[in-house]
Amino acid sequence: MEIRITKNDAPKQKPDENNLGFGNYFTDHMFVMDYDLEKGWHDPRIEPYGPLSLDPSAMVFHYGQETFEGLKAYRNDQGNIQLFRVMDNLNRLNQSNERMCIPTLDVEAMFQGIKELILLDGDWVPSQPGTSLYVRPFVIATDPFLGVRPASTYKFLVILSPVGAYYKGGLNPTRIYVEEYYVRAVAGGTGFAKTGGNYAASLKAQVEANEKGYNQVLWLDGKEHKYIEEVGTSNAFFKIDGKVYTAPLEGSILSGITRNSTITLLKDWGLEVVEEKMTIQQLAEHHKAGRLEEAFATGTAAVISPIGVLGWQGEDLVINDNQIGEVSQKLYDTMTAIQYGKVEDEFGWVIQL
Amino acid sequence: MEIRITKNDAPKQKPDENNLGFGNYFTDHMFVMDYDLEKGWHDPRIEPYGPLSLDPSAMVFHYGQETFEGLKAYRNDQGNIQLFRVMDNLNRLNQSNERMCIPTLDVEAMFQGIKELILLDGDWVPSQPGTSLYVRPFVIATDPFLGVRPASTYKFLVILSPVGAYYKGGLNPTRIYVEEYYVRAVAGGTGFAKTGGNYAASLKAQVEANEKGYNQVLWLDGKEHKYIEEVGTSNAFFKIDGKVYTAPLEGSILSGITRNSTITLLKDWGLEVVEEKMTIQQLAEHHKAGRLEEAFATGTAAVISPIGVLGWQGEDLVINDNQIGEVSQKLYDTMTAIQYGKVEDEFGWVIQL
Repeated sequence: MEIRITKNDAPKQKPDENNLGFGNYFTDHMFVMDYDLEKGWHDPRIEPYGPLSLDPSAMVFHYGQETFEGLKAYRNDQGNIQLFRVMDNLNRLNQSNERMCIPTLDVEAMFQGIKELILLDGDWVPSQPGTSLYVRPFVIATDPFLGVRPASTYKFLVILSPVGAYYKGGLNPTRIYVEEYYVRAVAGGTGFAKTGGNYAASLKAQVEANEKGYNQVLWLDGKEHKYIEEVGTSNAFFKIDGKVYTAPLEGSILSGITRNSTITLLKDWGLEVVEEKMTIQQLAEHHKAGRLEEAFATGTAAVISPIGVLGWQGEDLVINDNQIGEVSQKLYDTMTAIQYGKVEDEFGWVIQL
Repeated sequence: MEIRITKNDAPKQKPDENNLGFGNYFTDHMFVMDYDLEKGWHDPRIEPYGPLSLDPSAMVFHYGQETFEGLKAYRNDQGNIQLFRVMDNLNRLNQSNERMCIPTLDVEAMFQGIKELILLDGDWVPSQPGTSLYVRPFVIATDPFLGVRPASTYKFLVILSPVGAYYKGGLNPTRIYVEEYYVRAVAGGTGFAKTGGNYAASLKAQVEANEKGYNQVLWLDGKEHKYIEEVGTSNAFFKIDGKVYTAPLEGSILSGITRNSTITLLKDWGLEVVEEKMTIQQLAEHHKAGRLEEAFATGTAAVISPIGVLGWQGEDLVINDNQIGEVSQKLYDTMTAIQYGKVEDEFGWVIQL
């Protein structure tokens, strides 16, 4: 595949690496491909980062036909750039695309686009500890048409954002509100897909949890409002009596790549991992009996996010004395060490650019 | 409220009124307002219809924070333009906005924008029988930011599309597939809101139903996959033994304005309307016993859409001999007569511009 490159004549000044935050800054270029029924996906190109010009009737504005992915590029100790499990992200984008009736993309083509884009904007990959370059591939439906049906034209884009360390000064346990009213997803719906509607649906509960003094919500299943599903936009894990539990992938939960890496590492360390449904009632009983040793969420942004408090039915269940657990810390240290190339990658997760 | 108007210097040629279809053509102008945290909703203006320029990181492309409405303007027999239940649509837009964490808009301001826009593009309101001007107000989140939280900047737009007669040559009964796997919405989710994610989630089932030879799907509830909810993007009604049944508004179903008009008319005619949950099993039993007299869907686009066949578990249940029922026809005739100003509007539904 040949990628047409139009260089940005007016590169931006790079932001202060110590104050990047998340998703605030974007690099000088973006990768773009178009889809139409006649040509399929075509015209792969790198262009100066800049606004999209879309008809106000473009379907993405009305019917939310959109998918995305999120992954990170890291500057390793040798100064080179490496990606973590990028192929898994690209395969998952196609799973999301299938659910949302968006034509799938060639994984190798997407990878090549991402690679060339990152290499062109390589100076934007930050090197301060904990920083990285967030990579956001996404697809939007662009037909200027108001009927409800799958679009026949799409755009695939990749944009890059240098992002700061998620935790300044070590892992920080979060306060999580158990959400018993609002629902994020249900089996038969789109919960396993990374599509805008799932995130839009989650905002209200997040805002209300924040108002109650919590950082995020723990989602329960949409059918019975009792089985534990996810934490915010992350997968949830619980260490109980030495074993580690997480919700099974049954259609309403995102198949997190950090979830998968977590399970792989835990098993590698000889820990038992149980992918089984658990009710919030059961979890509370384990907590009451002193068996709930650690709780944490996993995701690309934070890697591992320890849960210090679960707010449920008016009570705050404090987990592990609101301290980071041993396994949580080890997972974070190991995963980030692999991501930054500080230890050997035994799992084939890293691709050096 | 003063609306700043920039006229389009290059008005388009108007399309053939006999071949409009739905949502294909747009008029010469659009109404726009912006929102930011400091000014709230501000700068109401009418501009030439044209592309939106948005940062590729604009939140609407990633997290689907978007709402919309759909209503119609009709040219009546006196040649004037009238709107049908516009205030109900605008109030519902605010209900959708609240659910999606979008700042609500002043209903009078929206109405004024719609009115001035339609009057400016008045020549675009078609006059062929059955045609109308579809009005699409919508809101999109525009922050150039990749974090998951409610946006702090939005755009409200109104675009107009002349649309053709939905039925050419009379009402046409549809073939509807009872969807038992995919789910559109669940209580606690966003089913009652007009937001992109609901429509994106519905596409897959619609495509599969089309492949099986059906026009649309009948959605069942997300919890037990047995209670009847909606048909495609319309509300569903069933006339059984002289009474008319429809699903109650319990959070997963859109509070359709045509649904409400239908109930009002039916009651006005002395028919009993029952808003109660009904299982597909119960409906099939009524059908088997010969009690299912009519079935139809209600929505802005088609007004009344008779259901001729329900495909359920491998069998086609034929309703009313695949003919339009008497009540369905009367509802369609009455509703459209009110919309086009052919009969008196006893219900205060019509506003003349």
